[in-house]
Amino acid sequence: MLLLLKFAVLLLTLGLCQGNRQPNILVEDVEDVEPAFEPSRFGSLWPLPQKVKISQDSFKLGSSFRIVDGKGSSAGSSCNILQNAYRRYYEYIFGGAKRQGLGKNRRSAPSELTELRVYITSADSECDGYPSVKSDESCESLLFLVGLETFSQLVYEDEYGAKSINATAISDFPRFAHRGILLDTSRHFLPVKVILANLETMAMNKFNVFHWHIVDDPSFPYLSRTFPQLSQQGSYHPYTHVYTPADVKMVIEFARLRGIRVVPEFDTPGHTQSWGKGQPDLLTPCYSGATPSGTFGPVNPILNTTYDFMAQFFKEISSVFPDGYVHLGGDEVDFTCWKSNPDIQKFMDAQGFGKDYSKLESFYIQKLLNIVTTTKKGYIIWQEVFDNGVTLKPDTIIHVWKGNQQQYQSEMAKVTSSGYHTLLSTPWYLNRISYGQDWHAIYKADPQDFNGTEKQKALVIGGEACLWGEFVDATNLTPRLWPRASAVGERLWSSKDVTDLNDAFNRLSVHRCRMVERGIPAEPLFYSYCPREYKGL
Amino acid sequence: MLLLLKFAVLLLTLGLCQGNRQPNILVEDVEDVEPAFEPSRFGSLWPLPQKVKISQDSFKLGSSFRIVDGKGSSAGSSCNILQNAYRRYYEYIFGGAKRQGLGKNRRSAPSELTELRVYITSADSECDGYPSVKSDESCESLLFLVGLETFSQLVYEDEYGAKSINATAISDFPRFAHRGILLDTSRHFLPVKVILANLETMAMNKFNVFHWHIVDDPSFPYLSRTFPQLSQQGSYHPYTHVYTPADVKMVIEFARLRGIRVVPEFDTPGHTQSWGKGQPDLLTPCYSGATPSGTFGPVNPILNTTYDFMAQFFKEISSVFPDGYVHLGGDEVDFTCWKSNPDIQKFMDAQGFGKDYSKLESFYIQKLLNIVTTTKKGYIIWQEVFDNGVTLKPDTIIHVWKGNQQQYQSEMAKVTSSGYHTLLSTPWYLNRISYGQDWHAIYKADPQDFNGTEKQKALVIGGEACLWGEFVDATNLTPRLWPRASAVGERLWSSKDVTDLNDAFNRLSVHRCRMVERGIPAEPLFYSYCPREYKGL
Repeated sequence: MLLLLKFAVLLLTLGLCQGNRQPNILVEDVEDVEPAFEPSRFGSLWPLPQKVKISQDSFKLGSSFRIVDGKGSSAGSSCNILQNAYRRYYEYIFGGAKRQGLGKNRRSAPSELTELRVYITSADSECDGYPSVKSDESCESLLFLVGLETFSQLVYEDEYGAKSINATAISDFPRFAHRGILLDTSRHFLPVKVILANLETMAMNKFNVFHWHIVDDPSFPYLSRTFPQLSQQGSYHPYTHVYTPADVKMVIEFARLRGIRVVPEFDTPGHTQSWGKGQPDLLTPCYSGATPSGTFGPVNPILNTTYDFMAQFFKEISSVFPDGYVHLGGDEVDFTCWKSNPDIQKFMDAQGFGKDYSKLESFYIQKLLNIVTTTKKGYIIWQEVFDNGVTLKPDTIIHVWKGNQQQYQSEMAKVTSSGYHTLLSTPWYLNRISYGQDWHAIYKADPQDFNGTEKQKALVIGGEACLWGEFVDATNLTPRLWPRASAVGERLWSSKDVTDLNDAFNRLSVHRCRMVERGIPAEPLFYSYCPREYKGL
Repeated sequence: MLLLLKFAVLLLTLGLCQGNRQPNILVEDVEDVEPAFEPSRFGSLWPLPQKVKISQDSFKLGSSFRIVDGKGSSAGSSCNILQNAYRRYYEYIFGGAKRQGLGKNRRSAPSELTELRVYITSADSECDGYPSVKSDESCESLLFLVGLETFSQLVYEDEYGAKSINATAISDFPRFAHRGILLDTSRHFLPVKVILANLETMAMNKFNVFHWHIVDDPSFPYLSRTFPQLSQQGSYHPYTHVYTPADVKMVIEFARLRGIRVVPEFDTPGHTQSWGKGQPDLLTPCYSGATPSGTFGPVNPILNTTYDFMAQFFKEISSVFPDGYVHLGGDEVDFTCWKSNPDIQKFMDAQGFGKDYSKLESFYIQKLLNIVTTTKKGYIIWQEVFDNGVTLKPDTIIHVWKGNQQQYQSEMAKVTSSGYHTLLSTPWYLNRISYGQDWHAIYKADPQDFNGTEKQKALVIGGEACLWGEFVDATNLTPRLWPRASAVGERLWSSKDVTDLNDAFNRLSVHRCRMVERGIPAEPLFYSYCPREYKGL
């Protein structure tokens, strides 16, 4: 796929997509000192493309500048993804000012750029398809979106306010195929508007997976067609705090147009308190001595009805969410309630599990995985499921989230030495905040920094920035996430050796102001200003 | 001043305003556990009034409900503060829905509240005056504003959505006279809109002092009529990032209508890098060996021109800002540059200061205080000025901001034993953030918790929550400040023995949702939801 410009002043060559695995490079520990405020030679590019050469030759984008389908491009005016992207990026570049074109016959100045021509050369342009974990590698349809983002980042205002761009050669591809953001819509309900704004911002930072942690203990906002009682009883409010099928569709389509996959998480058997309200007998009744206490624990793993429910439920999920993967959770199962329940005890004895409740947990997960396998979905699971020795399909993705640096690196080594694909999130729990420039630590973490062979490293498909919802809702989510998540975005996109904190600070400062100008309240990195400050409240 | 209701169902008696100094009560250290989600018997009142008795008798606020001047009230339709407040609170209570009244002759139901009558009994209703540090105590004009806020907090929706209020007896007055918020408009420029929104929120939390830290090292956004070059050269941008005289006026008037004083801070001799850009020779030239290095240090204290400038500048400030006090800063003076400068050395020798640069600092401050005294303003200064033994007027207010708990408590003891009034900010640097419910520590701090006599305690006039601007701008300021500052608000308003964290959590959760409903993106305390979530981004 190529983006070619009419006057050949700019060539965005989007290169081959095989991950370019560099040897490990020691990242020097940089002191947390006041950064040098000076422009980067890479301008405001973020994340940094794999190869960039910006020349001194500058061209103006005239009033009649257009983004158009190239002649002979295999995707054109009927391609939604393209046509939407043209409009979006025209808006970004010209700031929404509808500039009056001076007619087709106006002669353009010699140093003027009049058209950005988009050529899609692949036969299968996938304009109506959904992005997949393989899309980046096959280069079929999505790199033109990130190419447009890069193009828009190259545009700047000269001293007269004229939109300009320098002749630039870029060769680009992502280092990792899975670059995700987790949002949690259970601890606080996030209005659809907030989700969409963050999908928009993800695209500006070349993230391609929205991990939708949609339900959890506190609330169940997913409106299930099959089991409407789940949200009717389990949401904060059955009308104002739910995601209807139309809402979910809108989120998926909005994401698709931006090259973003939507991977839903329905975490079981723990983190399910809200499920129990609308689905009697789903959760384990806890006992106080010989009598039920009235409280409930994890999903009840000893009833057939549980698995009937799960089969129906995940059948629905597999059709509502088009992505090839579903996240099945499996983290933090508390055994206290299971231990208190005499029926569970009997079952444990009958199965010969003794007192090892992780065996019961595995028993449940195993059956769940079999159910989900019948829906033809792959699955992602939190690391505990792997740690407990559950039998997993070879294409299972293990999501590492626990421990300190040493612990998560050893977990990554273990998971990959067992041949599984893995995702890293431990250093990127962005709900955790601290005073000062905490993006430094976020930026320095590298998912391939662990002891392992090249083959093991190749099993790392990426990572996710997680924003758990205990302390965030629509009032503070966006500035808390951005630009801190942008640091993760560059780590997952750019070459492993892009580690210069000063250069990153200078590019990211301008990138942050660009997000602000595009209407996203991304918070400041340090004292400074944006030419156009945030207009909202 | 009394607020009386037509049908006598509600009596808001705003009591005497002498601070009600309670004996110290040991605050038990409560574990940072998950709070109990249950309604407080005080509903959503925040900060908690001094005495509250809410009965079970409920009355509806009908469609013709009005807030009106009582017959014989000494302030009426020509009183700006009142008339603006009526409109504001009508809007808050009915959520902007313009309800159709059914005419004057419609008969009201027996349990209906049709009017809130406002009686101002004092002769001097001060409708056009500015609030002062004495206003709270003299009860002249401002308690009706907080009374209206309290009234609006008592209104709730019954199960049919009807606005209702229970018969309630309240006796109220603030524990401390100075309840401030510091915003820093130098490290990041804050659009006027953001400042106004936070003044609005201050009123909802019964704060009464906006400490405007308007200039500092990074930028000088104050447009001075006398020295326009200061912002012309020293602001981030001379047109888009300055406060014009009209902006300043608007902020002051907006604050006045809400019973809020505006105390500007012009911090010298340190924190003045931005001053030097538009005022040559104001700052001390630093030397590298025998030659000037091209960089500058604090204000140059050895030139007469410095004091001529300060006299003119503070003359302007004293007329632009009507408040009786100005904050003169005086913190964190770095001696490195002074030490490097040979002219400073000579001056030190001539004055007999030896190598004690704090004497030079005091020399400067002393002269500055004399200048400001001629403008008839009182002054507030950061604790260093007191620590350095500068001679101070008896009515000087010492602002304590440094050290750990033991250190600031000992500083409070020292300051008050010297007979000075004092303000506490150390535990309330809200720019400092950490993960979790950090409002607990904020809430527990008490400005009168130090070893001292009752007479000393009486010299504590209050405190300020400070939001320094390194990491905040329009994108994230409001949710970072609220509701964390609300915790300070209750500490400064309510009785000293109001320390129950669980009750506070339950009231503050609802108060936070009320702020959200009023359009303020106050962030959540913990997982939960608001009936009407934040609508902005």
